[in-house]
Amino acid sequence: MIIVLKANTPIEKQNQLTDWLKGMHLGVHVSTGEYQTVIGLIGDTTKVDIDLISSLDIVERVTRVSETFKCCNRRFHPEDTVIDVNGVKIGGGNFCVIAGPCSVESEEQIMTVARAVKAAGAGMLRGGAFKPRTSPYDFQGLKAEGLELLRQARKETGLPIVTEIMSVSDLPLFDDIDVLQVGARNMQNFDLLKALGQTDKPILLKRGLANTLKELLMSAEYIMASGNEKVILCERGIRTYSDYMRNTLDLSAVPMLHELSHLPVVVDPSHATGIARMVPPMTLAAVACGCDGLEIEVHNNPTHALSDNAQQLTPDEFAKLCKRIEVVRSVIA
Amino acid sequence: MIIVLKANTPIEKQNQLTDWLKGMHLGVHVSTGEYQTVIGLIGDTTKVDIDLISSLDIVERVTRVSETFKCCNRRFHPEDTVIDVNGVKIGGGNFCVIAGPCSVESEEQIMTVARAVKAAGAGMLRGGAFKPRTSPYDFQGLKAEGLELLRQARKETGLPIVTEIMSVSDLPLFDDIDVLQVGARNMQNFDLLKALGQTDKPILLKRGLANTLKELLMSAEYIMASGNEKVILCERGIRTYSDYMRNTLDLSAVPMLHELSHLPVVVDPSHATGIARMVPPMTLAAVACGCDGLEIEVHNNPTHALSDNAQQLTPDEFAKLCKRIEVVRSVIA
Amino acid sequence: MIIVLKANTPIEKQNQLTDWLKGMHLGVHVSTGEYQTVIGLIGDTTKVDIDLISSLDIVERVTRVSETFKCCNRRFHPEDTVIDVNGVKIGGGNFCVIAGPCSVESEEQIMTVARAVKAAGAGMLRGGAFKPRTSPYDFQGLKAEGLELLRQARKETGLPIVTEIMSVSDLPLFDDIDVLQVGARNMQNFDLLKALGQTDKPILLKRGLANTLKELLMSAEYIMASGNEKVILCERGIRTYSDYMRNTLDLSAVPMLHELSHLPVVVDPSHATGIARMVPPMTLAAVACGCDGLEIEVHNNPTHALSDNAQQLTPDEFAKLCKRIEVVRSVIA
Amino acid sequence: MIIVLKANTPIEKQNQLTDWLKGMHLGVHVSTGEYQTVIGLIGDTTKVDIDLISSLDIVERVTRVSETFKCCNRRFHPEDTVIDVNGVKIGGGNFCVIAGPCSVESEEQIMTVARAVKAAGAGMLRGGAFKPRTSPYDFQGLKAEGLELLRQARKETGLPIVTEIMSVSDLPLFDDIDVLQVGARNMQNFDLLKALGQTDKPILLKRGLANTLKELLMSAEYIMASGNEKVILCERGIRTYSDYMRNTLDLSAVPMLHELSHLPVVVDPSHATGIARMVPPMTLAAVACGCDGLEIEVHNNPTHALSDNAQQLTPDEFAKLCKRIEVVRSVIA
Repeated sequence: MIIVLKANTPIEKQNQLTDWLKGMHLGVHVSTGEYQTVIGLIGDTTKVDIDLISSLDIVERVTRVSETFKCCNRRFHPEDTVIDVNGVKIGGGNFCVIAGPCSVESEEQIMTVARAVKAAGAGMLRGGAFKPRTSPYDFQGLKAEGLELLRQARKETGLPIVTEIMSVSDLPLFDDIDVLQVGARNMQNFDLLKALGQTDKPILLKRGLANTLKELLMSAEYIMASGNEKVILCERGIRTYSDYMRNTLDLSAVPMLHELSHLPVVVDPSHATGIARMVPPMTLAAVACGCDGLEIEVHNNPTHALSDNAQQLTPDEFAKLCKRIEVVRSVIA
Repeated sequence: MIIVLKANTPIEKQNQLTDWLKGMHLGVHVSTGEYQTVIGLIGDTTKVDIDLISSLDIVERVTRVSETFKCCNRRFHPEDTVIDVNGVKIGGGNFCVIAGPCSVESEEQIMTVARAVKAAGAGMLRGGAFKPRTSPYDFQGLKAEGLELLRQARKETGLPIVTEIMSVSDLPLFDDIDVLQVGARNMQNFDLLKALGQTDKPILLKRGLANTLKELLMSAEYIMASGNEKVILCERGIRTYSDYMRNTLDLSAVPMLHELSHLPVVVDPSHATGIARMVPPMTLAAVACGCDGLEIEVHNNPTHALSDNAQQLTPDEFAKLCKRIEVVRSVIA
Repeated sequence: MIIVLKANTPIEKQNQLTDWLKGMHLGVHVSTGEYQTVIGLIGDTTKVDIDLISSLDIVERVTRVSETFKCCNRRFHPEDTVIDVNGVKIGGGNFCVIAGPCSVESEEQIMTVARAVKAAGAGMLRGGAFKPRTSPYDFQGLKAEGLELLRQARKETGLPIVTEIMSVSDLPLFDDIDVLQVGARNMQNFDLLKALGQTDKPILLKRGLANTLKELLMSAEYIMASGNEKVILCERGIRTYSDYMRNTLDLSAVPMLHELSHLPVVVDPSHATGIARMVPPMTLAAVACGCDGLEIEVHNNPTHALSDNAQQLTPDEFAKLCKRIEVVRSVIA
Repeated sequence: MIIVLKANTPIEKQNQLTDWLKGMHLGVHVSTGEYQTVIGLIGDTTKVDIDLISSLDIVERVTRVSETFKCCNRRFHPEDTVIDVNGVKIGGGNFCVIAGPCSVESEEQIMTVARAVKAAGAGMLRGGAFKPRTSPYDFQGLKAEGLELLRQARKETGLPIVTEIMSVSDLPLFDDIDVLQVGARNMQNFDLLKALGQTDKPILLKRGLANTLKELLMSAEYIMASGNEKVILCERGIRTYSDYMRNTLDLSAVPMLHELSHLPVVVDPSHATGIARMVPPMTLAAVACGCDGLEIEVHNNPTHALSDNAQQLTPDEFAKLCKRIEVVRSVIA
């Protein structure tokens, strides 16, 4: 960490600061220039509060040199992490499409979609049983019954299941779920992250609405520092002033997260755009910039043909998209 | 709700949509124009998923006419809500300054600060015992011990205490806490909101990092629809591309929230700016545009004079500010 | 346009509004419901100020049904526009890579880079002669001398040249420039747009720092409504709270602009990321989601090897990337 | 400027960088630590491209120590700038309300409004003659005729006039205009800024839609470095994801700009909120945090009562607000 002091800082103030830093068992190196004084800190600065120091009267600016994330940092773990979910692998060259309906609605629905996405080549089945909704009056999911329907779908198709957990108190219900998803709104629900860090389940961690990549990695760090290294990062669009799309898919997060971290990175083009016909082009773009997997919403609703062109793809559209994914993957690798 | 169909929508598709809407027990009025067809919905449309309908192939645009929030809506509750915390009132002309340290650190610290803020005119004492931190390696608060120190400070000063709760499982520890605060990162932790809705405690609900006013009100609605009407809204700065300040304090939220809702609105200038010397001007601005209260960080640290000019005010600075608050209040009311 | 009135609007107020609208030669259809009244407008509503009406006391909400952009609207011009720049085509299936240095620096530099990018397959040469810089103390470009060097490079390589114009008063200097670029900061410099609309030059219009797609299309509309239909749209990253990248590349703009407009869409991954090693993955992603071309910065600086890994690619890196672009294009088309 | 190198940077690469920096006539101080090497630069680093250096392979991070703005920097000019417009002063304790209609529409309109705002206490008259509009089909202003009407209003009331200039080529028309306004969309139209820097007119410079405070100050620097020191800064709301307001008024810009610069700072609550009934609370808040003036839209339209509650205040509402401004000013100063 580098601290630049303001010009004309009184020497007593400077000494107060360096004494305080030494009291934190840090190596403190002062270099005094003509116009400014720079203090370099050596040692474990992860506990130093950069905001506090930045706001001191005598401080011009502070730069943190070593990253504060460790477990997920590629610097300390150069090889890609490969996560194995009942034999289905993701990361390190292993690619996986996770597909299924936004919400689990009925046995018939989840079974039909599960069979269809498996036939198209999906590696895992997704489906929401506990649904975070902005309004308390919106459908909150089938909950335990939804989880049970997912288990049936897994039993028949063999596809591992991925579903969102919203609360520590629901953990016992997720005992035999294969991948636990943390939604964007819970990305900084630190108690949930710590509790998931004490399980041995793979965690699919979605980037929050307006969170930076560093904050995403720090949330992964919460899980990993608690003992669970099986974290999959997920870019799902961020909030901007976009006018025609629900969110702005930040695909540059894919190569940058790969540079910063060894964890697998998947992309959710369905939530990012909110429009089914935008899902295929954004899916192919995500593949082209190197994502390790995708999470795509697929819904089969023969009686409600109207909703077919909403956010979710039909099984047919999904099957066609899977073929195009394969083609792009074959030339990118 | 108004649905505008695309030009040349086939009549069968249109009928499918109107039949589906009628199936939801809504009144459906179709007006067919030369270039477009407009469908008006009457009835309880709070359960209609506007995103779903917007994304239908045949739909040009959807406008929701009636607001989806009810309990917190001023339209259905024209008088200001007044919340009484052990005799200290907020809202409806009652103004309250909540002050105290960011974190509870020691008995000496909390006692000294509590006495000082009481003397200066604060109505409630704040102090963090459970601290949400971006990094798992940062100080997470004194937890139960911190709550105990807050109780001691209350006992001596008589000030009601306000402190953040991060998890449903901690609720039993907060049994005799006067006001439970929900932090920005948990604004859409819906399970926590529902659990707090089942208590009879006043809840101080902070606006999330990048949440809209409607989302803030919908989160208040979660608490209120679960049975607890004692919600205090708090603006604490939003995330933008600000370069010199931690967040961007959105003061226009104050008069707009007052127009939309009957709930009291407080402002936290300390977290919004992250810089102690910016707290006084932003505090006075918040008072001038009509806030019902403030949450201000005050810290007494005689041995660490360095941190005096960080985010937290000294007791002296706070006392001076309280006098200025009173002066501005006296001419605004 | 659909205007929804507030409940309990007095009939006189409603009549005032409808009379005023009729005075604008619009067809006015009023439908009165139990809880609300909806006014539909038919005719040329492009001149109706939606902000003004939205802000009326009696108005609940306004929805514009017909888009305000016409010349660039795909609805009125279903076929893709193909722009022919001295035989090099872009749009409608014609793909073009525009490459060259950020700034023209010297004859040797521009000649070397021009030859290199031509050999690698670029269709046009870019190079900044007039440079918009945040600071008045930063290098502002070689100006007229830079344009002359670009002409020399064109003469030798045959590549059409693309360069930024910042001011109407510079137009005479751009007389024989092939494509005039409007930079992000000038996207809403309406006087410049109108002047360019009176030329017959193809215009490369970059999306502003924080502008919506609609605003980008309205700026294209300024050029087209002034008589020049040769507009190329360019996505170059938008401003968010991104921490590791200069801007956030909004690739979903590509398919959405294609849906809304018939104009060609190119992507500039160099300015979007600001980091040379991020350019290849974002280039391939842009190709995969269907862009019509790319604008990529390439610099040859054998004596300053240090800057090779900055924002600009080396000729070698560019040549390798061009091959990968071709491979992805071949499977996407 | 401080450059932190990555661990394990080869010494040749490091020397290449330091040689290059020395070639720019900068003092270069290298301090080599156990884990990292830090390079300090002394001298005129305003011409060093921080983005270029940041993006070098071997560079971990760069921190600029001295600000790049000079003319407008309070560090080099501690006393407040006072701008005198025909005897009306702003800055350094002099407060001024600029008021008038959004657009000049007719002689009767501008005369009526000018008289009314003068009577209420406004110090200058505003009115748009050249209007920047997102759509080419929207009203673009009365142009030269509008300027003439402003001159008439000045003649009668004695109020100096403030109006927007959009293009260098219009400068001759503004010869006797008192204050030239640069609109948000032109904040980085550098050619316009340079041309205004060669006049001796006071310039009211509005912050761009999504520009940082530093960018605003750098644009002021363009004007000042060209020779004109009479710049008034204006905060008018920034673009965020606000749902109920047109923009988000960033009032913390007021004290922060005062800290960074000696220039006067005015606030435009009309454009910031877009809603007349939000103008009074935000005006009082702006006054309370120390702004040097306000720019408020006032319109007198007895025949179109409908628009009275749009963005613009009526003369009556404005007169009442002026009294409240005075009251708050009297207790703040």
